[in-house]
Amino acid sequence: MTTIKPRKAVMEMESYSPPLEGRRGMLRLDFNENTVGCSPKVLEALKNIKEEEIAAYPEYSKFKSKLAENLNVSADKLMVTNATDEAIMVIIQTYVEAGEEVIIPVPTFAMFKFYAQLAGAKIKEVPYSSNLSFPTKKVIDSINKKTKLIILCNPNNPTGSLIERKDVIKVIEKAQKCDCLVLLDEAYYQYSGLECLDLVDRYDNLIVIRTFSKVYGMGGLRLGYAVSNPEIIKNMLKAGSPYSVNTMAMYAASVGIDDDNYVRWYVEEVKQAKKLLYNALAKMKIKAYPSTANFLIAKFPKRSKEIEDKLKEKGILVRDRSSYPLLKDCLRIGVGTVKQTEQLISAIKEII
Amino acid sequence: MTTIKPRKAVMEMESYSPPLEGRRGMLRLDFNENTVGCSPKVLEALKNIKEEEIAAYPEYSKFKSKLAENLNVSADKLMVTNATDEAIMVIIQTYVEAGEEVIIPVPTFAMFKFYAQLAGAKIKEVPYSSNLSFPTKKVIDSINKKTKLIILCNPNNPTGSLIERKDVIKVIEKAQKCDCLVLLDEAYYQYSGLECLDLVDRYDNLIVIRTFSKVYGMGGLRLGYAVSNPEIIKNMLKAGSPYSVNTMAMYAASVGIDDDNYVRWYVEEVKQAKKLLYNALAKMKIKAYPSTANFLIAKFPKRSKEIEDKLKEKGILVRDRSSYPLLKDCLRIGVGTVKQTEQLISAIKEII
Repeated sequence: MTTIKPRKAVMEMESYSPPLEGRRGMLRLDFNENTVGCSPKVLEALKNIKEEEIAAYPEYSKFKSKLAENLNVSADKLMVTNATDEAIMVIIQTYVEAGEEVIIPVPTFAMFKFYAQLAGAKIKEVPYSSNLSFPTKKVIDSINKKTKLIILCNPNNPTGSLIERKDVIKVIEKAQKCDCLVLLDEAYYQYSGLECLDLVDRYDNLIVIRTFSKVYGMGGLRLGYAVSNPEIIKNMLKAGSPYSVNTMAMYAASVGIDDDNYVRWYVEEVKQAKKLLYNALAKMKIKAYPSTANFLIAKFPKRSKEIEDKLKEKGILVRDRSSYPLLKDCLRIGVGTVKQTEQLISAIKEII
Repeated sequence: MTTIKPRKAVMEMESYSPPLEGRRGMLRLDFNENTVGCSPKVLEALKNIKEEEIAAYPEYSKFKSKLAENLNVSADKLMVTNATDEAIMVIIQTYVEAGEEVIIPVPTFAMFKFYAQLAGAKIKEVPYSSNLSFPTKKVIDSINKKTKLIILCNPNNPTGSLIERKDVIKVIEKAQKCDCLVLLDEAYYQYSGLECLDLVDRYDNLIVIRTFSKVYGMGGLRLGYAVSNPEIIKNMLKAGSPYSVNTMAMYAASVGIDDDNYVRWYVEEVKQAKKLLYNALAKMKIKAYPSTANFLIAKFPKRSKEIEDKLKEKGILVRDRSSYPLLKDCLRIGVGTVKQTEQLISAIKEII
């Protein structure tokens, strides 16, 4: 046992070990991934990668230009990151001093709190409404001069709740008055159809982050990005690693963003499958909350862990979220294709 | 202009923007990379990657077991990281509170200071000796009860200086008496032939980090690792991202570590080429410092930037290091194959 102690913030942190192992070959409805994988064109392109791309340090400018064009923003408003995890970390490392206040509406994605804790921030959690809708007024009222950052996830993970555009704006405007940044995670915006990227030009306190891990089917490659005004991006670039994003990820994403038919097809497929799932759950008298994402929260009184385990035995992975605020007895269930969803529904029927 | 200011540490930091762009197709002697790329077996294996590996979040346990076996350590002493950059960052984030002291012998790899500054640490730089040898006594004398971390790079980048094993031990033992951690970066140990990984079992304050970006020829993939005692690794894992390393990198490295003949061949090639380069520089009356790595420091009085530029015009990249402490007028020149080195020597002859 060494006598050298970690930082106080690290000692006080909760561990976060998502169940990442042994998922291959299963129907993966547990991490909100694209369940059929990336575009076939991406896979094909990866097979043509050249030796020099593996050996040399990554170059970013070409990919950044392409992504910027695709997003219709200038490249100086863009930072590519080692998935959105790094974006969250860099934003907090750049702007949040130890002891400053970060507001997080909960339940939400665990890494927000993780990085805020790591930075030694004071975390103020604002609970979602009991029907899992976004608590606009409570959030706005919680922002004050002490707040440095507020984190929104839209649609929210794990609830699937949508924050309407007008409510996003209300939060940004209140935050602006308080010299407070807004981090808006749009990991699943393709499913909800609502995006607020354009607000970056209207408000100087907004940072939007997005990922290639979800609808693009590239979770294994680790690529995300942040969009904000050039001043904030410049500061983030100053505090971020100059070579955290790998070349393969950019290569894949570059092909992926050209194949938007594939993403559109998958989003439509998920929408149909989600309807099917809601209907089936209703018939089984299982309460399910409204979701605008590719997953939903369903309630299995006293049986969430059991159902998770039994589905796993049948080769289907879902995520028990019963320990989260407001989500007692709840599973988060991912939505894949219609065919996969039929398989899921049969499995649930057999179990209950 | 937003009125929201970054953290004090970020405002006070120096920017670090390595010249990563436009290097493809050139003879890359500027980032200490393997100049012929990864093992052909690695490239072949990457072409067989499956869709699921791209889509699903990375799984670490299998690769960690394999790497641990290869290193002859148990897996609980190992953390894989998004190249050694992330290892450095996580070590500092886990252990160094703002205001605590970090000792860095200089000149050395820029990212050590970068992450120490980002953490708001108090940085004590100890200069190498004027002949660029490791200043053992000065370093040992600089460690005291206020020191939290000392960072060694062996062999050192950019000087190529070796820290002898007995001196590494002296530093570790003094540090241990002061409850101070030692971070030992062995990015280039294959070239020097000296490794101190086994000392992790003898001293509870040592963390060794290594990379697949250099001799393995995988700089584009971003993979490194840290080895320490299980307690330190556990704390680092607690503070690190649970999914920062991409699947392709592990897939490639898994094949790479099996093909150790390739690494041995390349190291031998570099050794021959380095002899050639030293001889040629001596004939040209260019002062070069002793190096145990795959690069060396050479002095071009008042012409370092000019030589860098002119070599670039000839398609050869080297790195002007004249702004670094002790390295006035100096270039860091990478050593590749014998053939590449002959090309380099001809180019230098033509220019001077």
